[in-house]
Formats: sequence, C-alpha cells, structure tokens
Amino acid sequence: MPSRLKRILVTGSGGFVGRPAVEALRRQGFDVHGLTSSEVDLLDSSRSAAVVGSLQPTHLLHLAWYTEHGLYWSSPMNDRWVEASMQLFRAFIHAGGKRIIGVGTCAEYDWSGPGILAEGRTPIVPSTLYGRAKARLHEMLDSLCQETGVEHVWARLFFLYGPREAPQRFVPSIIRSLLRNERAICRNGGLQRDFLYVEDAGAALAALADHDGTVGAVNVGSGDSMLLSTMASSIAAKLGMLNQLRVDEAATTEPPRIVADVHRLTTTVRFHPAVGLDEGLERTIAWWRNS
Amino acid sequence: MPSRLKRILVTGSGGFVGRPAVEALRRQGFDVHGLTSSEVDLLDSSRSAAVVGSLQPTHLLHLAWYTEHGLYWSSPMNDRWVEASMQLFRAFIHAGGKRIIGVGTCAEYDWSGPGILAEGRTPIVPSTLYGRAKARLHEMLDSLCQETGVEHVWARLFFLYGPREAPQRFVPSIIRSLLRNERAICRNGGLQRDFLYVEDAGAALAALADHDGTVGAVNVGSGDSMLLSTMASSIAAKLGMLNQLRVDEAATTEPPRIVADVHRLTTTVRFHPAVGLDEGLERTIAWWRNS
Repeated sequence: MPSRLKRILVTGSGGFVGRPAVEALRRQGFDVHGLTSSEVDLLDSSRSAAVVGSLQPTHLLHLAWYTEHGLYWSSPMNDRWVEASMQLFRAFIHAGGKRIIGVGTCAEYDWSGPGILAEGRTPIVPSTLYGRAKARLHEMLDSLCQETGVEHVWARLFFLYGPREAPQRFVPSIIRSLLRNERAICRNGGLQRDFLYVEDAGAALAALADHDGTVGAVNVGSGDSMLLSTMASSIAAKLGMLNQLRVDEAATTEPPRIVADVHRLTTTVRFHPAVGLDEGLERTIAWWRNS
Repeated sequence: MPSRLKRILVTGSGGFVGRPAVEALRRQGFDVHGLTSSEVDLLDSSRSAAVVGSLQPTHLLHLAWYTEHGLYWSSPMNDRWVEASMQLFRAFIHAGGKRIIGVGTCAEYDWSGPGILAEGRTPIVPSTLYGRAKARLHEMLDSLCQETGVEHVWARLFFLYGPREAPQRFVPSIIRSLLRNERAICRNGGLQRDFLYVEDAGAALAALADHDGTVGAVNVGSGDSMLLSTMASSIAAKLGMLNQLRVDEAATTEPPRIVADVHRLTTTVRFHPAVGLDEGLERTIAWWRNS
C-alpha cells in the first residue's frame, strides 16, 4: 500500500518500548497516533472502539499491557488484558484496519530446554500467568485474522534495556546503585539472557509494521547470549566503580539461558540491531545520570 | 634495626613482580641490590655464594624461579630451583644475613575445598610439581631458620595482573586480542580467582621485608573473589569493545574458587592494597597500548 495510507495506532505509546517504537514508526513514514494509559483506559471496551472508530487506522501496534514490576508475572490482570486486547483487535478490524502487530514475550516458550528459543520449533509451554495470557492472545489473534483476512504479526520481545526502564529492574538497579555510590549486587551472575537495546526493539517493531504479509511469530532479540555478570561488570567498569560491584553466581532455579533464535527477524524481516552493547549501556548510563 | 643497615638482595629483580618489588623497597628506605637472570645464574651455587659474600646483604627477597608460561606447573626445573634456593639461603646466612623473604604460591594449598585459602588452616596439598616444590622449599627454609635463628617470612602469591605480565596469560591475552581488534575469548568465565595488581604485590613484599619477626606464611592477595568473566568484561567495557568479547561458562575441572584469606596480611602485617580493579585494569591496558 502507498505510504500515505499508513496510519498506525500505537497503544502504550508512552511506555518503555512505546516511545522508541513511535519514533521509529515516524522515521519509517507512518502517520503515528499514540495512545497512553492516561489518555484512554483500554480496559473499557467502549473507549477503545470509539478511538479506532474515529481514527480509522490502517495499522495497529498494541503495546499496552499490565506491566507492574514484580507483579505482572502472576497477576489476574493478565486475563483482563487478553479480553481487552481482543476487543481492541475486533474494533480495529471493524473500523477497516489492515494489519495488526501484536506484542508477545519470550515467556511464552518452554524455558526448560537448551535455551535457544525458536519460533515454530521451541514448544509453547509458558510457566507463568503472563506467558500463558500472551500465548493465548496470540492464538486468538491468529484465529481472528484468519477469519477476517487481516494481516498480523506477533512480536515476541526478549530482554530489553535502555532509558526509562523501570528502576527496579536489573540494568537500572545496577546503574542507580553505583550512581548513588552504593554497593551494587548482581545476583545470578551466571545466567545468560538475550539483551536488546530498547531503541532497536522499537525499530524492529516498526520494521514488522511495515513488512508485508502474515509472518506469524517473530522473536525480537539480539540473538546473543549475555551473562548477567558481564552486563553488571560492564556497567561498573564504564563507571570506574568495579570496587562497588559484587557478583554472585549462586545456584538458582532460574533457567541458565534464554536467548532468541533471530533467524526469522534477520532473514525474513531483514532487521538488524544498530546499537551495540557498549553504546547501549553508555546511553543508558547517561540517561540515568541526567534523570 | 636502624634503617641505614637495611641492605636487601632481590633475585628475579627484572621480572614481573621483581620490578615493582624493587621500587617499593626503595620507597621503604632499603638499599636495594637487584639480581636478574641475565646477570647471575643462580643455578650455579658458586655464583650465588660469591654475590652474597661480596654484598653482605641484611635481607634477601628471593623471587627468581623457573616461570616459563604453560611449562612451570610440571617442569623438573622446579626441583633444581628448590636446591639452588636452599644453597642461596645458606650462603646468605653464612654471609651474615638476618631476614629472608621467601616466595611461595597459592598452589601449595589444597584446592579441592571451599576455595578460601588460609595460612595454617587450609591443608598444604599441592596438586602440581610447582606447588609441591614451593611447599617443600618452605619447609626446608623454616627448618634452616629455626637452626640458625634467622628471621623469615613466606609470601604466598595468588593471581597477579599488571604491566609486563607474560603475554599468553589471561589478562594480557584478553587485552592484546582486543587491542588488535580481534575477537577475545574468555574461557571458564564462571571461575572465581583472587586478582591483585602487581604493584600492590610488590608493595606487600616490601612490607613483609620490613616487618619484624618470623610470621611464617602470609597470603599475598586482595581477599576478593573475582569472576574471570568480570575481569574480561571489564576490560572489554573499558575499551568499548564488548562486541568483540565472547565469554564461555563451560563446565571445567578447574577449582571454581581460589581466594586468599588475607587476615594475616591485613592484621599482622597491616598491609592494604592501594590500587583498585578499575585503576589496575586501566593502567594495564595503557601499558599494553604503549608497548
């Protein structure tokens, strides 16, 4: 479709991933309409129907969700968001929408295997309410789009870091402790995770929005496994505060490795991250220093 | 004894630890006479007897040993150095020497325990020829000093890093690969070791030389356990080259942790390291950059 017709509604546009996604979509030529939680309560289905009815977007990037740190993994709010999301999707299609970018999570996968998670190969065996809700929403979205002929893609986000991440989370907690000249503790230093800079995640979502056709689920990650100890040490070294960092490698019940197979992202969607770990960490540190 | 009488002979004075030890001893007011391998072959006992006979040092810091990277752990040269060292000690005492600073290794200890190694508590169960040779020399030195009334101390060095370390060893190998813009690989990233900056090791030896009385074995380390992955990541982060570092946490037969209990060093000898990990790594990187 010609670019003048690309009008996208982005829910959760004020959030951690939403802001860089909006910027990337604008760079991509989309007419972007962001929706923040303070503007519209998407759990009220009459409100979301009214918004899409008046806006008539061609595209929908649905980032809004319940994300309260420490609580979202097991909150019953996940179920309410499944319902609200489906109502939003139906209203969007009813209003003439053409393409939906749903947002899932690496927590949809079975985490008990070797830890390199691939779309279509790794079983969908979520172990949390959050993961189960997202997996169920993906199934329901898939059915809805098959019925209606609307295009969709399902972006499974891995571990993101960058400016505006919730302060209690791993990377901000290390940075903030050190900037306060307090001892920073990296627990589970031996765990390997896939960290992607949040601006790259936003750009990946924009690429998925702009891509043609239904590609199903797509992992959004770096494809690199990074030790938590490496992340923490790198931050401390960049701050010149290695003396204030303690790294524990204690045995843990957490899965040792969670890394994205990014073949579909890099080959089908042809997206490649632009921001390396050095630059990403330096920008994130600078953001916390100035905030 | 008054400081004007402190004349020390330092063997191995041109080596990795020898150079900073000589500098620290000079700062401490010692009249320092260094001996490098190119000057005198200490394996020739007539030569070492001639040197101490003509110099008549009050103190002896005996750093010289066979240290060929990769070979010294299991070389028969270790036995020759035990013999040559005893001959040097006897000649030193015969020439009127008063205090011997012998140099041992953390490899004298049993490494199969919990990994915090303490003088007098952790069993001496060396698993290598090198460790066994040093432990035997310590025993023999101890007997010799009891017979003759000469003071001695036995410095057990842990893992040192800093300028002039052999290029094949862990820290230099990471730095040099990255400075050549090549991929650096940190194997066994999950192992914890006690790293002390070599200038602090030299200063600790000077403090042991200047200390009064026979204190037996003293661990020379930082007392901190540092993951190899932290060392490697910190170097890469300081160089802004995290993208060129690969850290492996592969299972290994190496002991997971080797750390010095430094109670005796800090309490009895009252020595504390002056160079933190940030500064130590930055100076080491700078040295390799300019060498």
